[in-house]
Formats: sequence, C-alpha cells, structure tokens
Amino acid sequence: MPSASRPYSSPAAVIDSDAMDSAAPAVTVESINPKVLGCEYAVLGEIVSHSQRLQHELQNKPGFHPFNEVCFFVFFCSLLQILGHSNFFSQKFIEILDSYWQILYFNVGNPQSLGQKAITFFREVLVLCDHPPLLDKSETRALFSGDAIARARHILDGVKGLRDAVAAGIASRDGFPANPDDIFLTDGATPAVHIIMQLLIRSEKDGILCPIPQYPLYSASIFLHGGSLVPYYLDESTGWGLEIAELKKQLDEARSKGITVRALVVINPGNPTGQVLAKENQKQIVDFCKSEGLVLLADEVYQDNVYVDDKKFNSFKKIARSMGYEDADLLLVSIQSVSKGYYGECGKRGGYMEVTGFSDEVKEQIRKVATVNLCFSNISGQILVSLVMNPPKIGDESYESFNAEKQGILSSLARRAKALEDAFNGLEGVTCNKAEGAMYLFPRLHLPQKAIEAAKVINSAPDVFYARRLLDATGIVVVPGSGFGQVRANA
Amino acid sequence: MPSASRPYSSPAAVIDSDAMDSAAPAVTVESINPKVLGCEYAVLGEIVSHSQRLQHELQNKPGFHPFNEVCFFVFFCSLLQILGHSNFFSQKFIEILDSYWQILYFNVGNPQSLGQKAITFFREVLVLCDHPPLLDKSETRALFSGDAIARARHILDGVKGLRDAVAAGIASRDGFPANPDDIFLTDGATPAVHIIMQLLIRSEKDGILCPIPQYPLYSASIFLHGGSLVPYYLDESTGWGLEIAELKKQLDEARSKGITVRALVVINPGNPTGQVLAKENQKQIVDFCKSEGLVLLADEVYQDNVYVDDKKFNSFKKIARSMGYEDADLLLVSIQSVSKGYYGECGKRGGYMEVTGFSDEVKEQIRKVATVNLCFSNISGQILVSLVMNPPKIGDESYESFNAEKQGILSSLARRAKALEDAFNGLEGVTCNKAEGAMYLFPRLHLPQKAIEAAKVINSAPDVFYARRLLDATGIVVVPGSGFGQVRANA
Repeated sequence: MPSASRPYSSPAAVIDSDAMDSAAPAVTVESINPKVLGCEYAVLGEIVSHSQRLQHELQNKPGFHPFNEVCFFVFFCSLLQILGHSNFFSQKFIEILDSYWQILYFNVGNPQSLGQKAITFFREVLVLCDHPPLLDKSETRALFSGDAIARARHILDGVKGLRDAVAAGIASRDGFPANPDDIFLTDGATPAVHIIMQLLIRSEKDGILCPIPQYPLYSASIFLHGGSLVPYYLDESTGWGLEIAELKKQLDEARSKGITVRALVVINPGNPTGQVLAKENQKQIVDFCKSEGLVLLADEVYQDNVYVDDKKFNSFKKIARSMGYEDADLLLVSIQSVSKGYYGECGKRGGYMEVTGFSDEVKEQIRKVATVNLCFSNISGQILVSLVMNPPKIGDESYESFNAEKQGILSSLARRAKALEDAFNGLEGVTCNKAEGAMYLFPRLHLPQKAIEAAKVINSAPDVFYARRLLDATGIVVVPGSGFGQVRANA
Repeated sequence: MPSASRPYSSPAAVIDSDAMDSAAPAVTVESINPKVLGCEYAVLGEIVSHSQRLQHELQNKPGFHPFNEVCFFVFFCSLLQILGHSNFFSQKFIEILDSYWQILYFNVGNPQSLGQKAITFFREVLVLCDHPPLLDKSETRALFSGDAIARARHILDGVKGLRDAVAAGIASRDGFPANPDDIFLTDGATPAVHIIMQLLIRSEKDGILCPIPQYPLYSASIFLHGGSLVPYYLDESTGWGLEIAELKKQLDEARSKGITVRALVVINPGNPTGQVLAKENQKQIVDFCKSEGLVLLADEVYQDNVYVDDKKFNSFKKIARSMGYEDADLLLVSIQSVSKGYYGECGKRGGYMEVTGFSDEVKEQIRKVATVNLCFSNISGQILVSLVMNPPKIGDESYESFNAEKQGILSSLARRAKALEDAFNGLEGVTCNKAEGAMYLFPRLHLPQKAIEAAKVINSAPDVFYARRLLDATGIVVVPGSGFGQVRANA
C-alpha cells in the first residue's frame, strides 16, 4: 500500500483509486453501517419524508397544494400518529379525521400547542426545582400551590432519593414492595428498550418474541443490535388477543431454526392495538416466560390509559407476586414513561425501568451500559417520573384541581376513543376493534381491488399507496399499518 | 428438539439440561452480549463501585471508616472528575484535593448543591417556557427579567425554530454561515458520538483515530459498536501536543493491518488533558482529514472554557472556512453540549451536532437513527442549547447581571485551574502541564518503586492501587489515569 508516500498536508492531493483502497471510503449510504441503512422505522418512513417535502413546498409555493397545512393525524392524544393497515379513501373518512385531529408542528417548543394541557402540579414542582431562588420570594406563594412548594423543597433537600420515590409509587400501585436498587431512571421508554436489547442480543442467533402489529421501536432496536425478531401475531378477530398457543408455536419454530429466544415483549395496554390484557391471560404469560426461561419485557407505558369499566391495568410484577412468585422466579423488566398516561409529557424525556430477577452482576452491567449511553434522564425528567408515580393525594392542597385535570384528560381521551371507534365502524368497508386502552385504534380498511392493483403497478404496498394519496389530497399524514408489521388480510 | 412436548403453562416445570440447550440461557454475565461485558468505562470502573460500597457501609456503620462521607473529587467544576495516571500518596496531596473538591451526591436532584450556580437568565427562560401560565400573572414581572419574559414568549410563539437559533449562534461565533438543516439537537454530546460511531462502523475492520489519553466515552462507544480504536498519542512533554506526524504514523500502521480508518476524533479544548489547539495546528488537522478522506469528529464541548490569554477557541468549521474550504470539501461533525462552559448544565441534557459535508441521503440516515434512538433532547435541553448559543447581548435588560455571573464562573474556573496547576507542580514527584482550557488537569504522579511492586502483588495497575488506597484512607474518589488509556511512563 502506497499510503505512506502520500503527502497528508497538501489540500490539493488527489486520492487515486489505488490509494482509495487503503484510504477511507467516502461517506455514502453505501459505505455506512448496513444495520443503520437497513433499519426501518415506520413513524419516520417515506410518508413522513414526503410530508416534509410538501411542507417545504407549501412554504415556498402557497396555493400549490389543495391544503394549507401538513398535519399529522394525532389520534386522541398528543403524539404523532398512525393508522390504517389497509386502504380506504372516502370523503367521510377524511371528515372524521378532520374532526379529531390535532396539529403537530415540526418545530418543537411549545408542548401546550398540542392541545393537551400539562398537569399544573407537575409543572409547578418542576419549575420550582429548576429555579430555586423562586422559593425565597414573597410573590411565589401567590403563583404556586403550597404542596407544590413543599414537594419542591423536599426534592431539593434530597430527603428521599428519586428512585426511592418511584419505588414507593410502584409499591403503592401494586400492593407489593419495590426495591429502589431495581429502578433505573431512563430518558423515556426508548433507551430502556435499547439497553435490554443491547444486553441480551449477542448475534442474529438470539431472538426476541415481539407482537405483530408492534410499535416499530422494537423491530428497529432488534435490527440495530443485530438480533432476530421472532413474531407472534395478535388475533384481530378476538380483539387483538394474545394466545399462549401462538407464542408457543412461534417459540418452537424459532428454536427449530437454531434461534435462542431470549425475551418476550408484551405491550400492555397495547400499542398500536389498544387492547388491555385480562388478568388470567397475564398469569399464563408469566408462567410461559418462567417455564421457558424468557425475560418478560413488559412495556407498561400506557398503565394509566384504560377506558373500559370491565378492564383494569395490572402490572406484570403484581401478577407474578400475586401468584406467589418471588424476585428470583421471573426475569422481568417493566418499563414506564412520563410521555403517556394523563400526563403526556413527551418532551420531558422521563421514565424508568424496574428490573427484577436479575443478579447483581447483571444489573451492574446494565448500569454500566446505561452510563456509557448516558441515557439516564435529565433531572427534570427524573423528578417528573417521581411525581407521576406519586401524584397529589386526597387532602393535599392541589388534590382537587389535580384530580379535575386528570379526570378531564382521561375522560376526553375515552370519549374520543369511543367516538372514533364508532365512527370507523360506521364507515362502509372499515372495521375496528374496541378501544380499551393506550392511545390507539388500528382500524382495518378493506381496499377496493382496483386500488390494490394501482399500488402494485407502482410497486408500492397498498396501504403506503393509500397513505400517500391521502397526504397528497388532504395534507393529512397517517403512517401505513404495514410499518407495524401487520399482515394484509385482503391483498 | 423436544421443546414442543414441554408444557409451557406449568410453573413447576423443571427445565432439564436437554431442554436448556434449545431454551433460553439464564441471563448471567456469561450469557449477555460480550460487547457489553467487555466494554470498559473508567469513570464507572472498580474504584467507583468500591466507593459505592463504602458509601453504603458509612450509612449502616457510622464511624467504621476514617471519613464521614464518600466524595467525588470534582475538579474545578461540577462534573465527576478524574485524576492521576501514576501514583503518589501524600498528606499534602490530600490537602490540596481537600481544598478544591466539591461534593457530588449520588442521588441527583439539586444541581445547585454542586456549588456552581446556574445562569439566572437561562433558568428564567426555561421556567417560563415550562409553565406558560406564569406569563399571564402580574407577580411574574417582579420575579423575572423583562428580556427573559420576552425570550420565553418568542420561543413559545415558535417565531423562529430552535435549530435556526442555534445556527444563528454558530454563524455569529464563527463569522461564517450555518445551515439549520445541518443541526441535530441532541441529548448532550454523548448520543451524538454514539450516532456517528453507529453510522460509520460496519465491523472491526473500521477504525477511528482517537487521542490518548482520551475521554473514555470514545473507546467505550467504538467497542460497543464493534469497531477498532486507532490510538494516537498526545505528547505530554510538549503540553499534550497533537503532532500530524504521529497521526500519519498511526493511520498508516492501521491501514497496513487492513483497518479502514473512517474518522479522526479531536477534543478541543482537550479532555482530560486541558490543552487548547493552536490555529496552525488546526489547519494541519483539517488538511490531514481532507486529504485522507477522514470524517473530522470535533468534540468542541469546552469551547467556552479557555483560561490563557495567548490561546483562543476556534471551531474547526471556522478554520476550514477561513482556509477557503466549502461544505463539500470536508466531512465535519462538530459537537457542543450545555453541560460544560460557564453554563455547566449537565442535568439538563442538551446539545447539538453540526454535520457538514455529508450528502442529504446520509443526513437522512443520521436523522433516522437519531429518531429510533429517540436521542433528541428533551424540550428544555433544546431550548437551553438555543440560549447558550444566543445569550443576552449588550443592552439587554439581563446583560449586566448575566455577564457578571458568566465572568464570575469563568474567572473562578481559571483561578482554580491555575492554583491547582501550581499546587501539583509544587509537590515532590508530581508534574503537571499548563491548564489552558476545558475543566481538567492530568498530572503525572511519579510512584515509588515499592508501591508499584505492591500493586503488582495484588495484580492491580499501579494507579488503580493508588486510587483504591486514597479512597480507603480518605473517602476521596479519583479515577485512575490508565482508564483514559494513558501509558505508564515509569512502571
């Protein structure tokens, strides 16, 4: 290799093809990490890219499109959202979207602009912790509630650590103790998922059981960490049921291919499917993981979002403990986030994972990789998750106003969920399961054969074709259900 | 494989060794991802683990140790810090540490407890953006400065995006334009480093040139992403000089082993070495990267921390542009964070990377992986980085008090840097380079032969042995220099 003879200091040096072999390749999509290139992320896929182009065009050429704004369809809450695993295109559907959407601008800055107000008590405590000189000012008492001031002082004094507060909140939720040493405060739910994937996946021979349809974070994270996604299919015909027989079938099939399945992902309440698991079903899942030696990765970020009277959120830890299983009996990771629930503080990046059943040595490794990734939450996020798990109680000065805000948000979410569920089911060619929890409905749109064929002509999935048409015609962004791995029943 | 015949639902099922082959292995340190297990991170190594045990013991058995608190030695600022690549152990050294340390408790919560006060203007704006109802209250004008209120309204109105504000700040710093589309707002500097490593590293045949001694994030990130660290050694005898001949030598050597070197990491001002690069040296580095086709990964998080009159911070982008190089001439990533400088807002997790010279397609891949990792900053962190890059200007209501706070912090840092530099150099057996910038000194401690032998007996690196002795005797935590890759000159 002649590279030693090339002068490094001449800016005019031409790198000839011989030298190129030993030199660095130009940074092109062909020369980047193929795991990055190949990683698919539906909520940032071609439809979203196209919407950005449209937004750009609207700025430069007003009137060029039949709409004035590009809007993400935000489904009964404040997150970028997502609909449709098959296609249907009617004025009525557009009208339904139109009456429920909220506009999400690309430039972040004002969480209040998303329509859902932040919970006052939480923001008061955060602000006082952020700017403690306020605590000494006489005007402060007029601006902040007494219990928010007291809580801020309590946190600033460090009387009890934030992990202790989270553990206390979990214990009070479940009626079973929680250990602060099992709590990792994370920058939302996403880093928790990445850490567990990074920990468990050694090669493509390690597999993770994931629900389909799934939140695409899971497939993306497994892909980026070089593992294999082992799908199990939720049964749309039984309200997105999670059948143990299906889990077992997929597990055995993966094992027969030499895959070591290391964990089962369960999202409860479901994302993007919105179902809430029944207690008996959860018990079966716990036993399945226990007997098969799988880590149960319980995505429980929608624990405060249940909208039906006959269902109730139960944490998998509570289920396992109520079955008499102790710490060592089950490898369990429970993930929670401040982004969901009635709090909806996506922009704060706060969350935790509770890791039980793992040895201290393994937890030390988790701590190390969390530190290397610096994915511990920012301090406000840490404080916020401690507040979310310990909100005002009856008798506290803020309780009544806090509870009014909370119930207002939850009943609005429930009302919108039911209205949209009814609206979808009232449309010809659309069916939709019951909205039990989370923030999602995942309707099935039965597409005319002609549309399927038109999609085929341009080599596009039918639902991508539909979403693109919808966007071009109306400025509404929906993300195709195929991005969630959903099968096409009628294609 | 008999797994299909095993009942999954019986909690009492015993997994026999045959079944274990096809089943998941227990999650032990032996069965986790070896990249996680093998990843070393000096700032969370055995010394820090030991300090946590001591802290625990102090709580349970007061008086058991000859000290009452376990203290991280925090070197003239608010971050967990780090000293010593060889060993020396004297009462005088302890006294020096003693007079400069600051106590960092494990339980986060009160950033004010770290001694350095937050900049008032920044916190005022953050608080008003966090809790907009304050803007409508009559008491607010008494509690907040007028320009903070105006800035918060400006941000909340979304008149100009935060990336635009960052770009404007960069342009004003450099005197050359910056494009908002090149700015990625990140959760501090760390995720930016991980994203670039994840993008560039395809296998262990891809290498990254890193300074030694280095901030261990770089070695950890390269290891986790499966690449090769190609070291280049800073010359302690010339004030941690960065010699192009050394770069070239290491590059050629790596290439001769079949390594494709993809990027050069330069930390300026230096971490953990504290040197500030001269302009001429920076020009050589730019030309080197340009002619060798390397990405220049410029860690510029200490850009506001320069303490000597004859040195000035110049961004690599400014240097390249002043040499007449345009965007396409150099692959450059510049990283900035809100954690350093006079702002020191570690707990806020805010930062940006400015990515220039890359194609739109590659930037799209960066955006995708940043989204999958959800390592965009929390909103407060985003707002804060926009403020850091656009602080109050002369004539603004806050300017005088802002500037007094800023100069107070910077002169305190400079004073402490000089005092500690002098103190180290006044100690027998200790030498230390000049403190030019950043927040670090990296003294050389010349260890007695007996100590080196004693370390050898217990199979420990001499500096780890020293740090352990220091901790046990005084409760002071320092992290051994060998964790930064530094060579032992006298062992």
